Amino acid sequence: MTDPRLSELARLLPDLKLSTDPGDLEHHGRDWTRRWTPAPLAVAFPADIAQVQAIVRWAAQTGVAIVPSGGRTGLSGGAVAAHGELVLSLDRMNKVLDFNPVDRTLTVQPGIALEAVQQAARDRGLIYPVDFAARGSCQIGGNIATNAGGIRVIRYGNTRQWVAGLKVVTGTGELLDLNKGLVKNASGYDLRHLVIGSEGTLGIVVEATLWLTAPPPDTQVMLLAIPAMDALMKVFAEANHRLRLEAFEFFTDRALAHVTAHGAQKPFAEDHPFYVVTEFDAAGEADALDFFERCVEEGWVVDGVIASSDAQAAALWRLREGITESLARYKPYKNDVSVRISVVPAFMEEMQRLLSAEYPHFDVVWFGHIGDGNLHINVLKPDDLANDTFVSQCEHVTSLLVETLHRHEGSISAEHGIGLVKKPWLGSVRSDAEITLMRGIKAAWDPRNIMNPGKLL
Amino acid sequence: MTDPRLSELARLLPDLKLSTDPGDLEHHGRDWTRRWTPAPLAVAFPADIAQVQAIVRWAAQTGVAIVPSGGRTGLSGGAVAAHGELVLSLDRMNKVLDFNPVDRTLTVQPGIALEAVQQAARDRGLIYPVDFAARGSCQIGGNIATNAGGIRVIRYGNTRQWVAGLKVVTGTGELLDLNKGLVKNASGYDLRHLVIGSEGTLGIVVEATLWLTAPPPDTQVMLLAIPAMDALMKVFAEANHRLRLEAFEFFTDRALAHVTAHGAQKPFAEDHPFYVVTEFDAAGEADALDFFERCVEEGWVVDGVIASSDAQAAALWRLREGITESLARYKPYKNDVSVRISVVPAFMEEMQRLLSAEYPHFDVVWFGHIGDGNLHINVLKPDDLANDTFVSQCEHVTSLLVETLHRHEGSISAEHGIGLVKKPWLGSVRSDAEITLMRGIKAAWDPRNIMNPGKLL
Ligand SMILES: Cc1cc2nc3c(=O)[nH]c(=O)nc-3n(C[C@H](O)[C@H](O)[C@H](O)COP(=O)(O)OP(=O)(O)OC[C@H]3O[C@@H](n4cnc5c(N)ncnc54)[C@H](O)[C@@H]3O)c2cc1C
Ligand SMILES: Cc1cc2nc3c(=O)[nH]c(=O)nc-3n(C[C@H](O)[C@H](O)[C@H](O)COP(=O)(O)OP(=O)(O)OC[C@H]3O[C@@H](n4cnc5c(N)ncnc54)[C@H](O)[C@@H]3O)c2cc1C
Repeated sequence: MTDPRLSELARLLPDLKLSTDPGDLEHHGRDWTRRWTPAPLAVAFPADIAQVQAIVRWAAQTGVAIVPSGGRTGLSGGAVAAHGELVLSLDRMNKVLDFNPVDRTLTVQPGIALEAVQQAARDRGLIYPVDFAARGSCQIGGNIATNAGGIRVIRYGNTRQWVAGLKVVTGTGELLDLNKGLVKNASGYDLRHLVIGSEGTLGIVVEATLWLTAPPPDTQVMLLAIPAMDALMKVFAEANHRLRLEAFEFFTDRALAHVTAHGAQKPFAEDHPFYVVTEFDAAGEADALDFFERCVEEGWVVDGVIASSDAQAAALWRLREGITESLARYKPYKNDVSVRISVVPAFMEEMQRLLSAEYPHFDVVWFGHIGDGNLHINVLKPDDLANDTFVSQCEHVTSLLVETLHRHEGSISAEHGIGLVKKPWLGSVRSDAEITLMRGIKAAWDPRNIMNPGKLL
Repeated sequence: MTDPRLSELARLLPDLKLSTDPGDLEHHGRDWTRRWTPAPLAVAFPADIAQVQAIVRWAAQTGVAIVPSGGRTGLSGGAVAAHGELVLSLDRMNKVLDFNPVDRTLTVQPGIALEAVQQAARDRGLIYPVDFAARGSCQIGGNIATNAGGIRVIRYGNTRQWVAGLKVVTGTGELLDLNKGLVKNASGYDLRHLVIGSEGTLGIVVEATLWLTAPPPDTQVMLLAIPAMDALMKVFAEANHRLRLEAFEFFTDRALAHVTAHGAQKPFAEDHPFYVVTEFDAAGEADALDFFERCVEEGWVVDGVIASSDAQAAALWRLREGITESLARYKPYKNDVSVRISVVPAFMEEMQRLLSAEYPHFDVVWFGHIGDGNLHINVLKPDDLANDTFVSQCEHVTSLLVETLHRHEGSISAEHGIGLVKKPWLGSVRSDAEITLMRGIKAAWDPRNIMNPGKLL
């Protein structure tokens, strides 16, 4: 702690856990992107809201920038500290604070893992339905800051829909207590919704009250083999029409190859270009058969399997959920794009043409939440290519992709956020007037520009 | 048009329909509150977005304030023009622009009536589920500006949940095209959600893309007679547990007296202190009987009727939906408050004590969306009392009610908005820090302070 600013912080908050250990700096200075070299000034682990407020006030005074830091599973560089920032980790603020069975709300600290929230809900006979593969390590504060989506958006919406109340510390150290769990509250601008998805640039989420809901009836999981891209959305329309869907996820043969190489079991004897994992209410079993038969008759589906046990359902899900993990060692360059559902076929068509022309020699893996119009593209770095060269080649292609997206009124960021990774393309999805307004809002919340500066805006 | 500012506007926009007819000024200068004397400078009826932008630019230059004006069914004075403002009526921008069956979206101009949106959805085999008694005259733009709730929030949420995209003209005349109908779009602050509920103070909604949904299965409508206040939320908990609710609305004996005096048919031979109208999926018919029997056994319900035809269902609904109309002639002073659902019993208890102590001689009528924690209180003006005296007496009681609300962490405005009516109490539900942020946001969107100034903030 030789930095005088840190000594001052330690003096102000003698009980604050504060680390400048190189291991901590590296570990907490980056997120899942691993593109930037971590270089934080220090990592602070506040234990309560008062400590968060005091840290922010210190930062506003000294001008040290703060990087709010959750589980660091983010895929856009939002939680990266590469320029001497103070990482403010919520790791220690990870408790369930309250449960109200009548309101069906769970009040938690921001550092609690998504999976722990899901478990807390289940323990009380309810569910918290936001769900995705990073559940074990991502935090609810990070989920709120990115408005995380995941595999059940089609039924339950994004994180936004589950936030009944938020406590937030702004860039001036002020504590806001937003909406307080009310179902209805028409009393001026809903600042809660402004914070959701703001990527730590407006303030730090220090407490959240989440709505829970009743568990769905029993569900079934089905895996489908799909012979051609243009059949995908036909299968989706058919499924959405006949079944009560919980999830509808797709991936390509390349994705399957990686996930099976990583230990998952191959589902079919033959290879197929596309696969879908879908989950739906079991009550519609007869409908599920009709759906399947119709798809096979039409030639949209060529093979399929329905899980007959929880273990098999988990194995089918692993084929989709294991993809990100299985690719991690290739340092993939990721796009996370969305278009309206009706536009998916035309957009995918064009996108495929673009990607095969521009990446003739790279391994390109697609998957995603196609029922929400959301596609993930992962370009794998060849081992012999330097990371910088690789990234700049990919960024060139992203610029072309952005033109395609723009023509289809899509977004360069469906659910991962802008962070550092997509900052160059914010203007492709938000107009100058919108960006000016965002800056104006940011200035009102964070006049000293200490909350995650350089991210998003 | 002797006012030189108006002549200038007429010169800039020769095709603009602009009226200074005293009848139009009076009609369009007020909303349902009728507390303020209308005194607008003029009423403009733009026909398209370009005209709206040009009007706003003219207003920013001349400093004339604009009151965005929908169906003027608002209950908080939001659409009142009492100080020489230009009323910008959306009446002429009332068309359906587009329907997308795959995205299930309907794109409409802002001046379309809620009922016309519902009908357009039904014509296409879908529903737009926001619904309440003003459906025939309120406009979708006004619904969005107030984040309107209504009788089906319990199942479908408020207006906020159904807005897929918004076009908005800000206080500088800039046109924003927000979210463009995407299910997922994590690209910075969600300005769409900031506009929803902003009561015309940030900009004018000039187009909306709404999500539609599949119609629910057949429903049933039941009316219950409830002997005591403390049974109400027990009946709700039981209903919510056993049935798939579409609506759960309550009203008092006083409300029933007015609505039957106004032509509705009395449902039971006896009088009872409280009534509930509830609607639920018909598939749960057996559950409905169990529910009813349980409630009767417990003594929470003493009589009930289930509609056996659409006409009877409509008649039962009329008992609840006709209340506001039936009270209109008494110029009621209205409170529209909310608390968390779990707090309703304690709050109602205290509130009833307060109201009977403070209004010993006034007719006080309660009803509301109790399943959302939302109560409407209507205090009727005695014919022989001057309106000003009446309002100031009621405002005194509101100040006491606000203390009760504050203790229960409730809101002075559940769904009608702050407008002019509740401005004195904004600080009871939003902190100074929140209000400062709201002002900062307002300044970024409307630097000349021409968008509905004096309302809300
Ligand atoms: C295997 C895998 C699968 C994934 N699948 C999905 C998916 O399906 N859907 C999806 O949406 N995302 C997915 N992600 C991305 C990521 O998990 C989510 O974005 C998640 O919400 C990030 O949470 P976190 O706690 O890890 O946030 P971090 O990475 O720590 O931070 C993310 C952003 O939030 C800010 N932040 C964190 N905590 C707070 C706080 N308390 N207050 C204010 N700001 C804060 C940070 O500053 C940063 O800008 C996946 C990631 C992985 C690795
Ligand atoms: C019988 C009756 C029953 C009601 N029941 C309910 C109910 O159950 N739930 C509920 O929430 N409300 C209810 N209301 C209140 C009212 O109908 C709603 O608030 C409705 O949303 C107002 O819509 P409007 O078009 O009439 O808006 P107006 O009264 O014209 O305006 C309301 C506010 O919105 C602004 N505004 C209007 N149009 C625009 C636009 N295009 N762009 C920007 N700002 C605009 C105005 O400036 C004003 O601040 C009821 C009213 C009546 C008379």
